[in-house]
Amino acid sequence: MGETLNFQLVEIDEGIAVFTASPASKTYNPQGTVHGGYSAALLDSACGCAVHSCLSAEQGYTTIELKVSYHRPITIETGPVRAEARVISIGKRIAFTEGRLTDMSGRLYASATSTLMVLPR
Amino acid sequence: MGETLNFQLVEIDEGIAVFTASPASKTYNPQGTVHGGYSAALLDSACGCAVHSCLSAEQGYTTIELKVSYHRPITIETGPVRAEARVISIGKRIAFTEGRLTDMSGRLYASATSTLMVLPR
Amino acid sequence: MGETLNFQLVEIDEGIAVFTASPASKTYNPQGTVHGGYSAALLDSACGCAVHSCLSAEQGYTTIELKVSYHRPITIETGPVRAEARVISIGKRIAFTEGRLTDMSGRLYASATSTLMVLPR
Amino acid sequence: MGETLNFQLVEIDEGIAVFTASPASKTYNPQGTVHGGYSAALLDSACGCAVHSCLSAEQGYTTIELKVSYHRPITIETGPVRAEARVISIGKRIAFTEGRLTDMSGRLYASATSTLMVLPR
Repeated sequence: MGETLNFQLVEIDEGIAVFTASPASKTYNPQGTVHGGYSAALLDSACGCAVHSCLSAEQGYTTIELKVSYHRPITIETGPVRAEARVISIGKRIAFTEGRLTDMSGRLYASATSTLMVLPR
Repeated sequence: MGETLNFQLVEIDEGIAVFTASPASKTYNPQGTVHGGYSAALLDSACGCAVHSCLSAEQGYTTIELKVSYHRPITIETGPVRAEARVISIGKRIAFTEGRLTDMSGRLYASATSTLMVLPR
Repeated sequence: MGETLNFQLVEIDEGIAVFTASPASKTYNPQGTVHGGYSAALLDSACGCAVHSCLSAEQGYTTIELKVSYHRPITIETGPVRAEARVISIGKRIAFTEGRLTDMSGRLYASATSTLMVLPR
Repeated sequence: MGETLNFQLVEIDEGIAVFTASPASKTYNPQGTVHGGYSAALLDSACGCAVHSCLSAEQGYTTIELKVSYHRPITIETGPVRAEARVISIGKRIAFTEGRLTDMSGRLYASATSTLMVLPR
């Protein structure tokens, strides 16, 4: 889905991941703004990669739940957006993450928290 | 975004909306299952339409927040999925909704709650 | 905390738990309504017990996250309230639950979803 | 409820509020740790006060929804805890907040996000 929506992983460090993307009109909802599912997908990708960066080769992960807050509407005029996620805490079984979706000037459009399960492969 | 992902609104009644969709491989995440953002988008569409069905022509709506729980992974083998949402309560300013994403046999894959703002147009 | 706040477990069956309680003025917030933490505590108790009812003697549980939606304010005039929770899905590691807090006529005041971890003892 | 549970508002600035409290054994759940409702109550108080600090005398507020993530159990041995909340964004109708509950050494026990409605009085 990330490829279909042109998500780019632009930064990854231990516990942090950043994606950028440029919402196109095909991502709109009937109200004429970017669909809430687009922001959710981008933030879910970022939260998952942030957790991935903390795991060993013997571990996998899956999202248990994701909560997204919508601060203001995104449109094509918003330009490229940036989703930055980081791990708040991680144990052997559960990881907690948070993420923010901003435009290139740092203006906040959406924020998220997500809980993920750490899995033995 | 609903068109791009081939979401179909198949039922709408006062306070209830149902979408169906058939996840394709382009909706996958790198783990080889359907991206969490896909379920989020489908459930967000359903929750929004459920609220829309309760409004007058002078009212609009927007999603404030969406929480999605992921019960089991979706793959192409899952076949078509169905997102059913309903309004739990609605006032002049705020609507609370919930939704469930199942396969055609009723097996549960994801569930959601979402809060929406009711807007005067 | 349940004792301090006079929570009563009144029903338990496989995957379902019901608590009742009568909010007193000491549970108020400065706005003159029952504190959001009171509803959260009651719903957390109910969700936990609903999961507990599905476990073997070798398993324990802990709440990972709880989301509460506040539909209308509770006051002393509301009278006794009833929190009913049920397990939506449960696996070896994770359980998903939902709950509703109503008055004795079934009027809805709060609803919740909660994710719990199933633990080997 | 804050008085009953001995919550102390120790800091308030525009968009920020901090409460401290010392959980007693009466706040325990049957598992022998502090009840999830206790952390929820403390974080809800802090999120509400953080919003309150941004309002005019003609405005009120109410919590719409609260999501709490539980990172590790709190016990009496944890000692006093500190809930710090801040406003992420606020408009004429909706405020988004986040909070963290730590011990006095800064160790994280719970985190929260909460959406509140801004009301004309």
